[in-house]
Amino acid sequence: MNEVQLITELTKGLTLGGNVIVGPGDDCAVLDTGLKSEYLLLKTDAVVEGIHFESNASPEAAGRKAINRNLSDVAAMGGLPEFALVTLGVPSAEKYFDYLRGFYKGMNEAAGEFGVSIVGGETVKNPERLLVSVAVTGKVEKKRCILRSGAKVGDAIFVTGELGGSISGKHLEFTPRIKEARWLTENFSIHAMIDLSDGIASDLKHILTASNCGAELLARSIPISRAARLNARAESSSKPPMLAALTDGEDFELLFTISPKCAVPLLDTWKKQFPSLKLSCIGKTMEGNALLLKDENGLKELKGHGYMHFQ
Amino acid sequence: MNEVQLITELTKGLTLGGNVIVGPGDDCAVLDTGLKSEYLLLKTDAVVEGIHFESNASPEAAGRKAINRNLSDVAAMGGLPEFALVTLGVPSAEKYFDYLRGFYKGMNEAAGEFGVSIVGGETVKNPERLLVSVAVTGKVEKKRCILRSGAKVGDAIFVTGELGGSISGKHLEFTPRIKEARWLTENFSIHAMIDLSDGIASDLKHILTASNCGAELLARSIPISRAARLNARAESSSKPPMLAALTDGEDFELLFTISPKCAVPLLDTWKKQFPSLKLSCIGKTMEGNALLLKDENGLKELKGHGYMHFQ
Repeated sequence: MNEVQLITELTKGLTLGGNVIVGPGDDCAVLDTGLKSEYLLLKTDAVVEGIHFESNASPEAAGRKAINRNLSDVAAMGGLPEFALVTLGVPSAEKYFDYLRGFYKGMNEAAGEFGVSIVGGETVKNPERLLVSVAVTGKVEKKRCILRSGAKVGDAIFVTGELGGSISGKHLEFTPRIKEARWLTENFSIHAMIDLSDGIASDLKHILTASNCGAELLARSIPISRAARLNARAESSSKPPMLAALTDGEDFELLFTISPKCAVPLLDTWKKQFPSLKLSCIGKTMEGNALLLKDENGLKELKGHGYMHFQ
Repeated sequence: MNEVQLITELTKGLTLGGNVIVGPGDDCAVLDTGLKSEYLLLKTDAVVEGIHFESNASPEAAGRKAINRNLSDVAAMGGLPEFALVTLGVPSAEKYFDYLRGFYKGMNEAAGEFGVSIVGGETVKNPERLLVSVAVTGKVEKKRCILRSGAKVGDAIFVTGELGGSISGKHLEFTPRIKEARWLTENFSIHAMIDLSDGIASDLKHILTASNCGAELLARSIPISRAARLNARAESSSKPPMLAALTDGEDFELLFTISPKCAVPLLDTWKKQFPSLKLSCIGKTMEGNALLLKDENGLKELKGHGYMHFQ
């Protein structure tokens, strides 16, 4: 049983009120709080010492990551983040104080870049290691809220940035794609969107399952990062670059689908708007439920090889 | 350095936006999201295996506690809770699945009793023990939002229920005082309120510091619980009942202040409204900043002897 299966099983029987537009299972929960044209977005996530960051990682960078992971989820809904709350699980207040000062500095900086206020938190004892849980709220115009479930058969599939090898540094230093997602939903009809936290092979599967369709990816269109290529060259035990691009976690790029007739206008206007961030059309959605990859040897099926936290 | 000092230090330099009515330092953050007559309330808290519940505690009871701790904070603002998000730090998905099913059942039940929907969550690996962080949102009419900072010199100080010895069971089985707090703010002008998580000696200090005043408590008015008396009789090493009532943690009762002229009408109407829940006037706020206790031997100063999580 992996992390996704565990949380799926546990959240099955939950009782949801009529003001819950989307409950567990998307990047954020989507909630009706009585505002006429906006929904409230809620997301929680955590980083753990020795798992999401090493004890020797810069505390500022680890703090930035703790905030930015959540902001990336708000971006994937098309939303704007507003407030954050922090729960610290700390082995010792004395021992961790200096580290946590840097961690809070990083969190405050990352939050500030997107106008987010850190409005509170709690501290509990977690005797063996630092665990930081962050909850974020956001808002999104009802018409611009993008779910995982909106993909249609025949959609073009797009991904921002370059993929794989984030462990070399990007996993700590990424920028949540809030501006890009806001621009996308302002100018195009985005059908479905997710942020890449576990790799395309896993995360595209979430869109396909929620939207009840399959997909075919074109191997030569997958944007492989320099880090994924360098890692493969440096160590023979590393994943080949294509596998890294498909299955490495923590790229925090946007993956979305859009009507194929918008593909060319999107690519054209994107280049002018975001000249330094690549946008790639990597395939299309299909009938069925398989996720296929087409390369020089033909078609093969991609199983859920994404990074699974418990495996 | 204890828990309160740690979080106070860490949250000092945070940048808060203009939409933050109350940031770190009250029971909940109070936020303006654009609704005309309501604020958004946000609170996060966590329970840790071996600290807030033992591994052999009923998972349903531990789950109820994880939710109810947060609901108690929403009650202390005069608010109504709406949504909850859960982050699990789990050593092993396989090993903890059965326990977590019970834990979720308890959380869902506790949430349902107050119309709260658990709308999502995340799972991360916390290798050594289960840690469950819960974030809750609530809403409160702007005019009925009660802060810690509103106490005035000469106020009567009230507490619900009976205090001390919650470790014998109440810490798992308490009821968050949402109905009571809603009734209070509907019918009376409550000046300041907090929920008792660390004991009167600590929690009243928070009101006094925020409101810039002192207080004098009357020892014979402190409502000592049966559990605190039984514990003292059973073990000679236990705290005397009065000390337990003043300093034991996790009573989750309401502590509030109100104009002295409302004290008698409040006690009269309370008895009719909540006949099975005691309400006690335990003292009054004063000039200065000391917290004094008057007993048969005279006045003595109460220092911060509340339960401090890191000591």
